[in-house]
Amino acid sequence: MVSSRGQRMPPSPIRKLAPFAEAAKARGVHVYHLNIGQPDLPTPEPMRRRLAEIRDVTYAYTPSAGTAAYVDFLKLYYRRLGVELSADQLLATTGGSEAIQFAFLACAEAGDHALLVEPFYTNYRSFATIAGVELVPLVTRGEDGFHLPPRDAWEKARTERTRMVVLCNPNNPTGTVYRREELLAVAEFCRDHGLFLVSDEVYREFVYDGRTVTSALSLEGFSELVVVVDSLSKRYSACGIRLGCLATRNPGVYQACLHMAQGRLSPPGLAQAIAPAAAALGPEYVQGVVTEYQKRRDVLFEGLTRIPGVFLRKPEGAFYFVARLPVDDAEDFAQWLLTDFSLDGKTVMVAPAPGFYATSGLGHDEVRIAYVLEEGDLRESVRVLSAALPAYRKARRLD
Amino acid sequence: MVSSRGQRMPPSPIRKLAPFAEAAKARGVHVYHLNIGQPDLPTPEPMRRRLAEIRDVTYAYTPSAGTAAYVDFLKLYYRRLGVELSADQLLATTGGSEAIQFAFLACAEAGDHALLVEPFYTNYRSFATIAGVELVPLVTRGEDGFHLPPRDAWEKARTERTRMVVLCNPNNPTGTVYRREELLAVAEFCRDHGLFLVSDEVYREFVYDGRTVTSALSLEGFSELVVVVDSLSKRYSACGIRLGCLATRNPGVYQACLHMAQGRLSPPGLAQAIAPAAAALGPEYVQGVVTEYQKRRDVLFEGLTRIPGVFLRKPEGAFYFVARLPVDDAEDFAQWLLTDFSLDGKTVMVAPAPGFYATSGLGHDEVRIAYVLEEGDLRESVRVLSAALPAYRKARRLD
Repeated sequence: MVSSRGQRMPPSPIRKLAPFAEAAKARGVHVYHLNIGQPDLPTPEPMRRRLAEIRDVTYAYTPSAGTAAYVDFLKLYYRRLGVELSADQLLATTGGSEAIQFAFLACAEAGDHALLVEPFYTNYRSFATIAGVELVPLVTRGEDGFHLPPRDAWEKARTERTRMVVLCNPNNPTGTVYRREELLAVAEFCRDHGLFLVSDEVYREFVYDGRTVTSALSLEGFSELVVVVDSLSKRYSACGIRLGCLATRNPGVYQACLHMAQGRLSPPGLAQAIAPAAAALGPEYVQGVVTEYQKRRDVLFEGLTRIPGVFLRKPEGAFYFVARLPVDDAEDFAQWLLTDFSLDGKTVMVAPAPGFYATSGLGHDEVRIAYVLEEGDLRESVRVLSAALPAYRKARRLD
Repeated sequence: MVSSRGQRMPPSPIRKLAPFAEAAKARGVHVYHLNIGQPDLPTPEPMRRRLAEIRDVTYAYTPSAGTAAYVDFLKLYYRRLGVELSADQLLATTGGSEAIQFAFLACAEAGDHALLVEPFYTNYRSFATIAGVELVPLVTRGEDGFHLPPRDAWEKARTERTRMVVLCNPNNPTGTVYRREELLAVAEFCRDHGLFLVSDEVYREFVYDGRTVTSALSLEGFSELVVVVDSLSKRYSACGIRLGCLATRNPGVYQACLHMAQGRLSPPGLAQAIAPAAAALGPEYVQGVVTEYQKRRDVLFEGLTRIPGVFLRKPEGAFYFVARLPVDDAEDFAQWLLTDFSLDGKTVMVAPAPGFYATSGLGHDEVRIAYVLEEGDLRESVRVLSAALPAYRKARRLD
């Protein structure tokens, strides 16, 4: 019989809707995918050119911790952020995913608890299930822009088995960017109780309206407790190469993760070969990407907030947000969009928010929306949603 | 504090010697690496050509279970072996490593036992530690060519917590190829007790002297219990691309592993893009590789068995074997080779066998030798070892 953890492994909540999207497409309906975080922008040209220049005759294992060239690239990347890290504080990983998995395994025993805020990145659930770690959620609310709860909420949620806090900053799914003092308050809470602070910063560059984001690695006095997980996926629009890193100044955590890395031999070699080419990208690369996403955010924010009953605070970063809709069952609405609705042969696919909450019943009137489509498609998506919501309310007799 | 499993994660036993090898090289000594399984043969030209043809503008996520093209390639590969598998029985993984990890997690609970024979592939220890699974070893011996123990030995080793048997066939580190009836006996043992049979077949093509190897997938009547882990690494001399698969006809195991795969999003995309090009390789590709490795095996086998006190049965497959040497501390000998010995400015690096045993004290007079070097280098390695062994015995006063 399959192990109980195997049976408990959560299926992707977004996958559930995939057959309905396929069926809609088969009927000739165009589906705008607001449900996934796959950037549509090109992978930077220097990385693609580097791929064409690979002349290796044997695609050999790389060092378990990453090639010298990739680790040097990471050092340079962090130095440009003002964060000095040495080679033995940077571990190459197979995407941010593996970095999160390693962090969970190294920072907590099976049976231990991890505190985090909900809604949260749904795949933390998978990594926690594998590690046997219980996710203990603190609610954040749209009215507060999903900002972090005050210290006493963390204190109340802590148990004897709490070993770590997991933050995602800028946040997937809410698009919230935590202020330095918010982050500092959580770091102090962690320090006072001997907890690790695992900070998922894969959307680091994606901050809008002139904001800056504080990396947990730049907080002074918290070296021993901070474990940052990072990825090239979003930053360089290169999700498929599966390359990221774990960065920590805690030698024990580093060594445990390095030993896990030795067990799986090495991270992807072709990805490591092309990644260092990104060092040639100047600040204008990130500026261009941020300008593009900010424009997209504005289109969606302005469009959606004009729809009666839709509520969201202006998203601050990443390329997602969680919006409250005038529905009482977001899963039903998301499915209905695919099965029962189209406007001029078009519909939209959104991610129902309940999959991003651990607490049952939360998020029933919310959806996560990703803006990784071109501006014109986003405008059209707003038009579709503007027509769909009243039609859905009528169909379900919500008025 | 780092979790106890993090602290227990075994470092690579081969890594321990790496600094001594570096120091030897820094002294100008040439080190023949008989310690690692990194094939030196070229990655097949069609795969390398395909890499040069990649024109993707965005390196995007692939489906979690693998691209249609890669899964189709796997189906074709297995069909050519006489094994029919459907797309929902084949899961693309990040190397064979991830397939092994998924299998451990899906087939056993934390605290359960896995039976396997020792010596065994050392990294099973890492995957077992992550899964919280206890490895329970049955000893195999060089005198028996490291073939499998009889049924009663498996019965005796089984406990209430035994959930699975792990086999590696052809075997790393011993080079043993299990006969069909050996494999069948283990499969029957598994069936009779409701255990999973996890069969690591990454060296499937590497069998010598006209042998054939039986895939566990080709045993009739055991569909529900067989989980095969596989990799392109050795077959196509492409270890660095990190691409493999898990193959099982058990829908529950498949689904659990698919959900784990969804958690980590996707396997490496560039690897999946080039892998299908290997479908163009005819049987002459494998024949050529096997002929080359068999020649290398012969050079080493004939050379080493002529050294007084060295014992090994003729290796049957893979590109490793475990040899008994006239030493009483293989770890000391392996280190001494790097620190104290050279012949004409050359020495060899071998993997001490104790790292491949779970039972303390076993393998103290054995080493694992890999033959992934050219014939001339292997002849020279034999000459070095022939001179080194008497010198070591003299230095350590073993005579």
